[in-house]
Amino acid sequence: MPSTARTVDWDGDAVVLVDQTLLPDRFELLRVVDTATLCEAIGRLAVLGAPALGVTGALGVALAAVRGEDVEAAARALTAARPTAVNLAWGVAEVMRHREGGPDAMLAAALRVRDEEIAVERELARRGADLVLSLCAAPVQVLTHCNAGALACVESGSALGVVVELHRRGALAHVLVCETRPLLQGARLTAWELGRHGIEHSLLVDAAAAWAMRSGRVGAVLVGADRITARGDVANKVGTLSHAIAARHHGIPLVVVAPESTVDAAIERCDDIPIEERDAEEVLAWRGRRAAPAGTAAFNPAFDVTPADLVTAVVTERRVVRPDRGERLG
Amino acid sequence: MPSTARTVDWDGDAVVLVDQTLLPDRFELLRVVDTATLCEAIGRLAVLGAPALGVTGALGVALAAVRGEDVEAAARALTAARPTAVNLAWGVAEVMRHREGGPDAMLAAALRVRDEEIAVERELARRGADLVLSLCAAPVQVLTHCNAGALACVESGSALGVVVELHRRGALAHVLVCETRPLLQGARLTAWELGRHGIEHSLLVDAAAAWAMRSGRVGAVLVGADRITARGDVANKVGTLSHAIAARHHGIPLVVVAPESTVDAAIERCDDIPIEERDAEEVLAWRGRRAAPAGTAAFNPAFDVTPADLVTAVVTERRVVRPDRGERLG
Repeated sequence: MPSTARTVDWDGDAVVLVDQTLLPDRFELLRVVDTATLCEAIGRLAVLGAPALGVTGALGVALAAVRGEDVEAAARALTAARPTAVNLAWGVAEVMRHREGGPDAMLAAALRVRDEEIAVERELARRGADLVLSLCAAPVQVLTHCNAGALACVESGSALGVVVELHRRGALAHVLVCETRPLLQGARLTAWELGRHGIEHSLLVDAAAAWAMRSGRVGAVLVGADRITARGDVANKVGTLSHAIAARHHGIPLVVVAPESTVDAAIERCDDIPIEERDAEEVLAWRGRRAAPAGTAAFNPAFDVTPADLVTAVVTERRVVRPDRGERLG
Repeated sequence: MPSTARTVDWDGDAVVLVDQTLLPDRFELLRVVDTATLCEAIGRLAVLGAPALGVTGALGVALAAVRGEDVEAAARALTAARPTAVNLAWGVAEVMRHREGGPDAMLAAALRVRDEEIAVERELARRGADLVLSLCAAPVQVLTHCNAGALACVESGSALGVVVELHRRGALAHVLVCETRPLLQGARLTAWELGRHGIEHSLLVDAAAAWAMRSGRVGAVLVGADRITARGDVANKVGTLSHAIAARHHGIPLVVVAPESTVDAAIERCDDIPIEERDAEEVLAWRGRRAAPAGTAAFNPAFDVTPADLVTAVVTERRVVRPDRGERLG
């Protein structure tokens, strides 16, 4: 992948996507010229991550307009391709507001959605790197969990965008990448992205993170977020809580990097949010091979909740908030 | 596996081992007739767990003597097959003390090591269950890591022997089994053993343990140990430290169940012990399929060290010691 390639982009008269289902074995760009194909790609998870899905939805409606498809039908089909993805529906609606201006106005609106997302990512990277360097001596040893990189976004990502920015500033020592069981987003995606940027990194099993901290290998823990409450509770990929508790125990800062759109100021605490439990097979088998004996049950929460008092800082594109000092996001 | 089969045993003129690398897909006994093959089996982790390694070391030296091998060379090779495993070295040394008595005396000594181990396991189970029931209301929800069951020992195990004893007493609610990456001993071995005993259990990824604790699913954490120092630092499978920190954070007791032979009273703290780093491939690939891109490095410590202040209790066949209260083992 050329280091300049965006995860989702517009290419004159088509939507261009990195097909994430093939990573890390193969890098392939999909050039999509009709919404039916785009819906199919969204449905089989070729594109993942809230920001990337928002931009894909916006560009998808613009594609339908430019190609002379029925835009109402295209908007419905795109929204239905991942019915729980709020950002996908949001991106579609954002462009549909410009329906009366015709294809040119809709394409302009879609490109604005893309450009605003890129601007957010650049601001996250800048503010996050400034914060980390105010908390830790350079060069910084970073530990990450899951994938909060370009592949979930458009250009540079959230937490991983900060890592790339630290690297650009010559302030990064090394990245420890938690593999992130059960779906191995750290191993498959984050390691691949870091390799693309030429950033030195090592993969570790999630359970080795506490030992990495105790043995002096971690200066800061950087993660993304799926939802952040008013007081600063953070819902994120399962394992984040484990790293947060270990980081606090060892006096290491936990920095959450996420756009303002992730903040849900209407909710005070995350404890009331139901945590999605996913299929047991994700834990019991991997790429078709079983680990556990037949008949074994599994407890497979997709997310966990890190309480505000364990969160050193939340970095958004507009502000830095310190929940562990009682600062609030809403 | 017949429920009577021992993990490691002597069979007339050979050492017989359950080949744990094949579980849970296949149950196979290895009949080993020379120490080179035994060292190779130890090195590729066909036998795991401190007590089982102790008996294997003892029977291995006896094997060398009975077969007329150079016993000094055999003792050195066996000890070097897993340099961090103090029990392996202990079992070897125990039989080497009878070198002057010849093969018969050495074999008798090795069989004593085996029989004493079986008696120890029965006492660990009894004392451990008594302790857990003094710390937690029955029925107890237990979380375990790695395999400290019969497969790590000879007959009933250490931490898992306590679980089986709690079950026998009708005082066990449920067992959460951490899968234990990278080698998945929890998924492959512990789940298999619990199934064999008809004990209800669920597998979870290691990183979900903290969330299981926070969401009220864990009453006690039970683990084995590879080495315990005079003040009560515990070296055990990587991930134990992570669970210990999370358990302390949530006010949940961490009970370490291990024989006296695991106690190394000559060492005050574990921080000075070198931690074995194993092959990166264990993390990068899973059952022959690569997870990470080619060229990715890995940090793969086999063990971690839990400091004494995080250890609620150490249960041996002779005593219960409370390191977090400043009680010492030596």
